Amino acid sequence: MKAWNLLKLSENPVLSEVNDPQLWDNNHIMADISHSALNHRDVWIIKGKYPSIKLPCVLGSDASVLTGSGKYIINPGLEWGDEESFQSDSFHILGMPGQGTFAEKIVVPENSLFEVPDHLTMAEAAAIPLAGVTAYRALIKRAGAKQGDKVLITGAGGGVSLWAVQFALALGCEVYVTSGKEAKIEKALALGVAGGVCTIENDWHKSLLQKSGGFDIIIDSIMGNTFPQLIKICNAGAKICFYGASAGNTQDFSPHIIFWRQISLLGSTMGSPEDFSEMMAFIKQNKIKPVIDRVYSFSQLPDALERMQTSAQFGKIILEH
Amino acid sequence: MKAWNLLKLSENPVLSEVNDPQLWDNNHIMADISHSALNHRDVWIIKGKYPSIKLPCVLGSDASVLTGSGKYIINPGLEWGDEESFQSDSFHILGMPGQGTFAEKIVVPENSLFEVPDHLTMAEAAAIPLAGVTAYRALIKRAGAKQGDKVLITGAGGGVSLWAVQFALALGCEVYVTSGKEAKIEKALALGVAGGVCTIENDWHKSLLQKSGGFDIIIDSIMGNTFPQLIKICNAGAKICFYGASAGNTQDFSPHIIFWRQISLLGSTMGSPEDFSEMMAFIKQNKIKPVIDRVYSFSQLPDALERMQTSAQFGKIILEH
Repeated sequence: MKAWNLLKLSENPVLSEVNDPQLWDNNHIMADISHSALNHRDVWIIKGKYPSIKLPCVLGSDASVLTGSGKYIINPGLEWGDEESFQSDSFHILGMPGQGTFAEKIVVPENSLFEVPDHLTMAEAAAIPLAGVTAYRALIKRAGAKQGDKVLITGAGGGVSLWAVQFALALGCEVYVTSGKEAKIEKALALGVAGGVCTIENDWHKSLLQKSGGFDIIIDSIMGNTFPQLIKICNAGAKICFYGASAGNTQDFSPHIIFWRQISLLGSTMGSPEDFSEMMAFIKQNKIKPVIDRVYSFSQLPDALERMQTSAQFGKIILEH
Repeated sequence: MKAWNLLKLSENPVLSEVNDPQLWDNNHIMADISHSALNHRDVWIIKGKYPSIKLPCVLGSDASVLTGSGKYIINPGLEWGDEESFQSDSFHILGMPGQGTFAEKIVVPENSLFEVPDHLTMAEAAAIPLAGVTAYRALIKRAGAKQGDKVLITGAGGGVSLWAVQFALALGCEVYVTSGKEAKIEKALALGVAGGVCTIENDWHKSLLQKSGGFDIIIDSIMGNTFPQLIKICNAGAKICFYGASAGNTQDFSPHIIFWRQISLLGSTMGSPEDFSEMMAFIKQNKIKPVIDRVYSFSQLPDALERMQTSAQFGKIILEH
């Protein structure tokens, strides 16, 4: 089969002829990949900014697939383990070190397959897995979002943040966003958020406080020195759930306001099989359509990666295989 | 009546003759104070390190009291508000700005009174209120401690930390402590903790990790630059609950390990009426006796304050009125 093989760090993967994956177990199934989707993880691995990289590898964590019995998406998380509250040491996801979805075929455990909801195309379905489960766990399982909560989602445009926006809207939350680009705020408003602020503004956090009156929940993956601002716009009892830290460490973490205002800071990453299954039911029940940025052909992976590296996208970037 | 009146910051309160408190409402009751107890809050107010200090004032948040109908302790938290997850803006506690318990009598709402458990003396009962409810909320309501959890409680010796130790032991947790003084570790071992480490040791956190294998829950009020060490000895899915920050801000807060290991950082302060009521039931059911450091006579408040200021104590410091 054909697959995008990552041979060297800091270079694009190379489209190559590789051996088909092997069906090595009765609990596994061979599937033809219909569509895949990009995640920041793919970019970080290519740049060498990820722990324990093994080369060569076929990247890609998301896919919609066809098997003899129908249309599915794959839960890319494998061997989560027995605890709902954290993943086991053997937890891993599709795409490095095991073969990922930037390929024609894949072999996965049969219980990783979930039927594509009727209201979604195969391209839309491929936008769900990793970003969807990360957003679902962060917003709903960790932060416990519920109807009426005022929710801020930072960095609108990325796959996880837009799933968080859509899940929060479906729950009946009052949703606000930030972005470094005004055009992305406009697109988020079109999705139904109550307001947004461009972070190139001075005092962006004060504008947000004025618009919203303060937040019950903040979903973030930026951290760094934006974190002290986020704390200032929290309501008492608020929860800040973060699943990444693209701006790195925070240099001035003040515990006093956090304990006095009974704030919770919740780290979260990806999600358990239970989270995945609940998310699929939630998407079906609320007929949520993912935000697709652009659909590239399978051969255009380098262009698709370029778009993600420059943060030009608003929504998931999809490959049609 | 006689009361210890704080007239100037950085000076000890003065024992003076003041007017009796007034019974101004049918829902309130006048009580004779049997015993009171000191809290760090009293010391911070005297030092001027507390927000919105109003002078003169009578400090003291804890008391066991006698009324016509029996023996009680007082929940010192007033006007918590309707939300369990945080206190209202009008929440306040006995002892600045309202009259505190370093006095002969006090007027409090009748529903602030809780019967002294049969297994406790009046001196022991006075050790419960503020420290007990703070520990109960932090350990049990916020961090959700349960049987079998490995729990670290830092700064063993203070009132809150020793209540947290005793509640955790009563739950059946495996409990460890830290202290800056070896003698306090010895006393904690005598209470039944599984182990302890003196923080003047280099690499104290590595010793703790070796002894315990890692913690599910950490209860802390030190923060500052001990915090990065605490993170390193957390198990995946761990909860760090902090109710103070005697070492101040943390200069290097790294979010990556927190989200990857699904750790929760939970701010907590004092407790709601529901927390107080549940704590009283828990103390009764488990027949927990507080750790009393020393009982001073009412006239010895300056000596008692001196003992607390030098962190010499192990357990609550009590005044017999």
